[in-house]
Parts: sequence; C-alpha cells; structure tokens
Amino acid sequence: MKNTYFTPGPAELYPTFYQHLQQALDDQIGSISHRSQKFRDIYKFTDEQLRTLLNIPATHGIFFTGSASEVWERVLLNCVEFESFHAVNGSFSQKFYDYANALNKHTHVVEKPFGEGFDATDIEVPAYAELVCLTHNETSSGVQMKPTEIHKLKRKYPKKLFCVDMVSSAPYPDLDFSIIDSAFFSVQKAFGMPAGLGVWIASQTCLEKAERLQKTEDFTIGAHHTLPTLWKHYKDFETPATPNVLYIYLLGKIAEDFNRIGVDTIRKQTEEKARMIYKFLESSDAYEPFVKKEQHRSQTVVVATTHKPSAEVIASAKTANMIVGSGYGKFKESQIRIANFPATSAEQIAALLEQLK
Amino acid sequence: MKNTYFTPGPAELYPTFYQHLQQALDDQIGSISHRSQKFRDIYKFTDEQLRTLLNIPATHGIFFTGSASEVWERVLLNCVEFESFHAVNGSFSQKFYDYANALNKHTHVVEKPFGEGFDATDIEVPAYAELVCLTHNETSSGVQMKPTEIHKLKRKYPKKLFCVDMVSSAPYPDLDFSIIDSAFFSVQKAFGMPAGLGVWIASQTCLEKAERLQKTEDFTIGAHHTLPTLWKHYKDFETPATPNVLYIYLLGKIAEDFNRIGVDTIRKQTEEKARMIYKFLESSDAYEPFVKKEQHRSQTVVVATTHKPSAEVIASAKTANMIVGSGYGKFKESQIRIANFPATSAEQIAALLEQLK
Repeated sequence: MKNTYFTPGPAELYPTFYQHLQQALDDQIGSISHRSQKFRDIYKFTDEQLRTLLNIPATHGIFFTGSASEVWERVLLNCVEFESFHAVNGSFSQKFYDYANALNKHTHVVEKPFGEGFDATDIEVPAYAELVCLTHNETSSGVQMKPTEIHKLKRKYPKKLFCVDMVSSAPYPDLDFSIIDSAFFSVQKAFGMPAGLGVWIASQTCLEKAERLQKTEDFTIGAHHTLPTLWKHYKDFETPATPNVLYIYLLGKIAEDFNRIGVDTIRKQTEEKARMIYKFLESSDAYEPFVKKEQHRSQTVVVATTHKPSAEVIASAKTANMIVGSGYGKFKESQIRIANFPATSAEQIAALLEQLK
Repeated sequence: MKNTYFTPGPAELYPTFYQHLQQALDDQIGSISHRSQKFRDIYKFTDEQLRTLLNIPATHGIFFTGSASEVWERVLLNCVEFESFHAVNGSFSQKFYDYANALNKHTHVVEKPFGEGFDATDIEVPAYAELVCLTHNETSSGVQMKPTEIHKLKRKYPKKLFCVDMVSSAPYPDLDFSIIDSAFFSVQKAFGMPAGLGVWIASQTCLEKAERLQKTEDFTIGAHHTLPTLWKHYKDFETPATPNVLYIYLLGKIAEDFNRIGVDTIRKQTEEKARMIYKFLESSDAYEPFVKKEQHRSQTVVVATTHKPSAEVIASAKTANMIVGSGYGKFKESQIRIANFPATSAEQIAALLEQLK
C-alpha cells in the first residue's frame, strides 16, 4: 500500500503529477533539445502559468536553477556588492546568512529564537545593507513572516533590494511583486514534484545591479547562472546551460492545474487545513503547537511539540501508511512537522489527525 | 510513432529508463526524505555502480550538482587560487575557459581551430597553472582527446591538478583515476536520461586544495556545493542541499545495467558503431567527416559536413522519425551531428545510415 507523505519536502506528489509525467514520456520531452522551438514553448508556458499564479509583473524574469539553495548563492553574488542583511530565526534563514558569509559579504543579522517570528517593527535595516534577505516560511521551525509585514518593511526601506525565500510556501504567500524585487522556491514542496529544480524570480532592478557589478573591476558575480546570462537567454525562452527540461514541463502543467482551481481557492484551502491542524494540536493532551504567536504560525509547515518521544508518534502514523516529518536539528526527538501542501486534501489531513489521536 | 533521437544531448532515453522510472514511482522515490536511510542507500548504490563502471578508486568522491556546467564553476572555485590552464578547440572547452575568466582567475589557453584535436605534444602547461582543464569530447565539433594522451600530459606535469570534461562521452573514456584528479559529466548524454543532474568526481587532493583555499583570508570557494561541504555530507551518503533524488536513483539503475553488459563491451560497441558511421561518411558523396585526423574523431558525437544544406538532411531524416542534431554555432547550416550513445543500437545506427543515403 502506498504511503501518504505529510513531510515538509520532498513531499507527497501532486495527484496530477503522474498523468503529466505519462504525457511527457509519450511526447519524449526527456529527449528534446533545449535549443528547439518545442522547449521554448514549454518555458514560455511555464512562465505564463507561474506569472498568473503568483501575479508576477513583466518587470520580473523567471529563471530555473538546480535547487532553491543555489538561488541563495546566485542572488547574493548578483545583487550584493558589499553588504547584505538577514532576518534569522531558524536553520534555513541561517543558511542564507551563512552563504553570504562564505561569499565574503559584509553581513548584518537580526536574530530571533527558534519558533519565534518577525514583524516589520522588529527589524531595523542598517544604512549600507544593499539586499534584505527574508524568509517567508522557516521550514525548520514552522514560523512564517506575513506578506503584509514584508511589504510594510519594504515600504520603510524602498531603495533596498528585497529577496524573499518562499521555498516551502509558494504559491501560498501573496507577495506584491510591484515592490518585492526577488523571490525563489523549489518544486518539491507545495508544487508536489520530486526535487531537482529551483525557481528564481528577479526584477530588472536586480538585473541592473548585476550588470553594474559585472563591470566592476576585480569583482565577480560568479560564472554559472549569472543574472545577465540567464536574462539574455530568457528573452528567447532559453537557458544558458541544459536545464531540467522535463521538470520545467511538469511545473508548468501543475501550475496550470493550480490556476484552474484558482490561487485564492488554494490559499483558502491551505488556511482551512492549517486551522484544522492547529485546532487539533491545541485541544490535544499529547501535542501542542510549537509556535506560540498565531500570526507567526506557518500555514504550510506545522510544527508540533510531542509529549511522547516524536519517534513513537512517527512510527505509529507509519503503521497507517502516513509519513510525518521529524523535528529539525536538536528538536528532532521532541517535535514533528506536518506539511500542509495542496497535494494533501482536507480529508487526508482529517485522517492524519484521527490517527495522531 | 515515436522518434529515435540521435541528437548529442538531450538524447534518446536508455531503453531500461522507463521500467526504472515505473519502479521509482511505485516506491515513491519522489517523496522520500534526503535525510532518510532509504536515500543514503540510493546514493551508496549509485556511487558503487559508477565506481565499478568508471574504475574510480577510494581516493575520489562522487558528487551531484544541477548540471555539468555547474561543475565548471565549482572545480574552478575550489581548486584554483590564481591560475588555470585550458585547452580550447570548440564551444564547450571555450565555455570552461570563459567561466574561469568570469571568476577572475588568471587564465592560460592553448587553442586549436574548430575540428582539430589535441595530443600531449601540442600542449605546454605554464609553470604557475594550478589546474589543467581538458575536454575529452568536444560536443560542438566532434573532436576527442584520447585518454592515453591525457595521461601522457599528466605524467609530464604530475604536480598539477587535472580536470577532464567527459560530459558527452562518459562512460566511454577509460580515464586512469589514479592520476586524474577530477572529471565530470551530465546524465542526458551517454547515460540516456533526461537532463537535470551533473556528476562530479574529485580526489582528496582536490579536497585538500579547497580546504586550504577556504582558510585563505579574503578568498572564497563559493557558498553552494563547495567541495568541503559536499565531502562532509558524502561521508554519510548525504548531500548538503536537497538533491535530485529521483535522477540519482535512475542513474544508479542505468549504471547497473551498463555494468551487467560490462564497460568493455559498451566501449567496443561504441567503437564499432562509430566505425560504421565514419565509414559511411567517407564512402558517401553527400557527406564527409568534419574531423580529418582519425585519432581525434569523437567516438560518441560524430560531426559530418553535409554537401546539401543540413536542414534538408535533418528534415528528410525526420520524415522517417529519426532526429539528427544540427551543426553547432556557425556550422549550424553546413553540418549535422550524430550521437553514438549506448541508447541507440547498431541496428538503429544502420537504419539511420540507410536513411541518410
């Protein structure tokens, strides 16, 4: 019997994934040239579907990388000459910050403990920071920063570039790309695909910065997947190197399915399912929500403290073919993580909660 | 009716690809955690199969990236403090060189015209070059550098790191990894998979260099997929970021199939099929082999000058559901490229040649 994956990525595959894959195999998408019209049509289609889904304006390009982690590096190389700023409250926002340090950027950080979240008023961005790096959804701790707070902060610092990690939440956050310069996600979370493709959204302002930095003597914006090279090829819906053509095709098809449902409906369904989970955790004697403040509770990755060792909870769910994620890092044994992505229905969530009882 | 792809990558999928993919879907490989024992077993299996196939000793690690192009950047960042050396005779060896320049390395180059190849005696490596970058198979021009020549050159410069691009030829070249420090390939060529995974082989000597560079003040080896981070996780058969789990699984299975046939047999079959193609080109009035010197003729990507416009040849083959590659860059209209990978049998090659008549 097949398992249902409630893990925060890799996660349950979206139900339509299989039929799209079959179609791709029938059409031999795995063999077509990335310099063919067929590929350009695929890139254009996926671009259009993501644009509709996430309300991305024409000022922004959509690019593909090997993973979302790669984008941490690319955005720092292409958009930061000297200084970056990071809001860190978990393992993934920490890694974004670590990447900046590894690239010898002068870094600034505001930190909060694991399980706590940021509002705009918590954050002062230093004068010389060029790029503000925010994490919409901290996959490790189940904390979100609301788009309204992200937008408020950007309005306070309109001249700084803002980049939002929405790896484990897109398409849930309704980011306003008329003010947000860059964002990125990976496909193995809420899009219900296998891992192996990152998506990077970046504005012309980011491009201009990268072009200026590229001309700066003794400065490097990297060699692979630089923003100017990506953008140059993007104009013709091509990529500088051979990309993951098959996954770009599948992502376009799943984004089209999401658009058929409507992103508003998907966001409402996500919130309804999240409400079910948090309500259960609050009323249960065996669990409690890890994140205390309601406005910081992630809608896509719910973290629960377990009163029993989490391994027992996970093993028990496994007997019912339900796979739940363990806590992250030092919380591995005292927490579980439940993904709430579009691939799992309200009925499946209800069945999981019944089992967790 | 399905096409047969004789294109130099993306290319025809290996015949067993479909059954391995079905097994992966049945086993829900697309949803498993990259921090699970199941994933570690997959990485270990693929590592073992590639190690057997390519005769890779325990001194070398095997790592996964988003593409082979990414490895150009990684090996330059991790293994070159100041100076790199490049043998350039086509578009892809040129790109390797371009990447080094983009990373502000002090670069040295020896060049040959498109269609000509290198022997060891053609190459003088400057005293301060740290990394010698060679391309076993130039996909753009159909030129190879024989492993015996690569080894001869390394023996002349034993203290320099040698990195071999075998993107469009592995597992064909019998590289001696007791002297070759690093090599890389992508899976959409001779391994008959869709694009989206690069494989990087690197020695402990490369690692030691990267570790030393990482400690050097004001120096960066990059942030994503650095060799020390890849190696640290590799010890447990894990990866620093979420990798393309599904493709790593499929690569292991196809490598296992290759090992069942035996790499010697695969190499012999490759040479026999190449002989058929070159013999046809030499005896035909409509075509001629682009590469004049026999020892430089690629065994895996055959380039032919067409007396008719190549578009006519390609269109004619297409009517028989055979897809042939166009020439590269400025040779687009006067050449065709025929991939000779394990996915296409001697019978399929014979049928293609019959059609090309």
